[in-house]
Amino acid sequence: MELWFTEKQTPAFGITAKVRETYVDEQTPFQHLSMVETEEFGRMLVLDGMVMTTVKDEFVYHEMVAHPALVTHPNPKKVLVVGGGDGGVIREILKHPSVEKAVLVEIDGKVIEYSKQYLPEIAGELDNPRVEVIVNDGYMHILNSKNEYDVIMVDSTEPVGPAAPLFERGFYQGIYEALKEDGLFVAQTDNPWFKADLIQQVNRDVKEIFPIVRVYGANIPTYPSGLWTFTMGSKTHDPLEVDAATIPDMPTKYYSSRLHHAAFCLPKFVEDLTK
Amino acid sequence: MELWFTEKQTPAFGITAKVRETYVDEQTPFQHLSMVETEEFGRMLVLDGMVMTTVKDEFVYHEMVAHPALVTHPNPKKVLVVGGGDGGVIREILKHPSVEKAVLVEIDGKVIEYSKQYLPEIAGELDNPRVEVIVNDGYMHILNSKNEYDVIMVDSTEPVGPAAPLFERGFYQGIYEALKEDGLFVAQTDNPWFKADLIQQVNRDVKEIFPIVRVYGANIPTYPSGLWTFTMGSKTHDPLEVDAATIPDMPTKYYSSRLHHAAFCLPKFVEDLTK
Repeated sequence: MELWFTEKQTPAFGITAKVRETYVDEQTPFQHLSMVETEEFGRMLVLDGMVMTTVKDEFVYHEMVAHPALVTHPNPKKVLVVGGGDGGVIREILKHPSVEKAVLVEIDGKVIEYSKQYLPEIAGELDNPRVEVIVNDGYMHILNSKNEYDVIMVDSTEPVGPAAPLFERGFYQGIYEALKEDGLFVAQTDNPWFKADLIQQVNRDVKEIFPIVRVYGANIPTYPSGLWTFTMGSKTHDPLEVDAATIPDMPTKYYSSRLHHAAFCLPKFVEDLTK
Repeated sequence: MELWFTEKQTPAFGITAKVRETYVDEQTPFQHLSMVETEEFGRMLVLDGMVMTTVKDEFVYHEMVAHPALVTHPNPKKVLVVGGGDGGVIREILKHPSVEKAVLVEIDGKVIEYSKQYLPEIAGELDNPRVEVIVNDGYMHILNSKNEYDVIMVDSTEPVGPAAPLFERGFYQGIYEALKEDGLFVAQTDNPWFKADLIQQVNRDVKEIFPIVRVYGANIPTYPSGLWTFTMGSKTHDPLEVDAATIPDMPTKYYSSRLHHAAFCLPKFVEDLTK
């Protein structure tokens, strides 16, 4: 019998992947968590029916959350990841020697536990001594932090379920206050084909709080539409003013110094969402 | 009853779209042709089970076949489209006033007929007086043309069925000879996630024939992986040397002068396929 997992990315469109084995399929206190072996993308973490990451394409998302922000800040020492319990963003952050401490605040300890067990190539750096893992509500952690972080990365699920508050204006205000005076943040902001309204709303909200707001994109085949956007808000440093020649060569598969500026050049219909 | 069309983009991965109505579902002399109404992407043309174009996202593919090439050639007057019976590339070509004649050679007259009937917003310019439509084998047309075209665009299906010869080295040699002395061509070359070998092979073949070879990408949500590549081979003009300030503003939704150079900046793992 062939088993196929189908994610309805919209009510009338989705992706479907052949599944060889199901390792986990349970309700945590926060969401439904599944870990399966797919034939095309290797192991896949699914939360509330939505693909979070797969072994084959995880590098795109994790590199593109971490590197554009860390390259924009001239000397990032303390970095916070909200969500991201699979550990992929943490792994990429540690490629930057200036980072002394990377704090991960994940609300669902089960995501961390199962990622360590089933996705060691992604979660393997969560035990690194430069990393502090906190199982707690990221929203509350942000509200309790003042002038503390150089860079904050919001690696959340979609704005439904536990992540919904992470797309509210008040959250971005909290991020502003949790950042040091030259800090910056980046958040995943979904796709422009099915969630144009969300990108526009976040853009408007962040612009009311941060003087510099930039949106960039990346191709993630297992995410809706294959084109994912990220919104960066910054107090002083502008990712568009980074000198590409100063970007260090890192062991990456998607991001490069050549790609840095290109990622911020959006298709016209996406650019229009950010005006 | 809900009906869903599923395209297996690989043996173990695919997309699925809710279908409201089926207008055409028949075998032509060359391939299986379906025209359906999808809820998410509007009308959709499917050939041999593969999505060719949809009303919602067709602009990406058609703009990105036509404009990078026509902007790279300083004065394109005569342009050939091989395949492309839906007429979308022709529509974009006609946005360039220098083009005096655009010739379309499509092997399957049924694609033209049904596109005119069901996709008028795409095929509407096929009757334009600057356009000549020929229902014939594009491969033979290329072999019979010498020193004739400024720009050739290969808008083919995947390298199975009638389009298979359009991915052979001999075809690119024919294109070279069909082009004028400063001519250039562009071909769609599938996606880097599932068809890396194809991109590498085409790159090697075209480099043996054309002095300038460049690969660029675009996000097409209904194509496998959401990231599509295009390979350009040119005798003298280099798309990387185009001055973006000279690119005219055109009524487009994806391509822009700002995007022109960024489209040629590929993710590292794709860049590696072109070395």
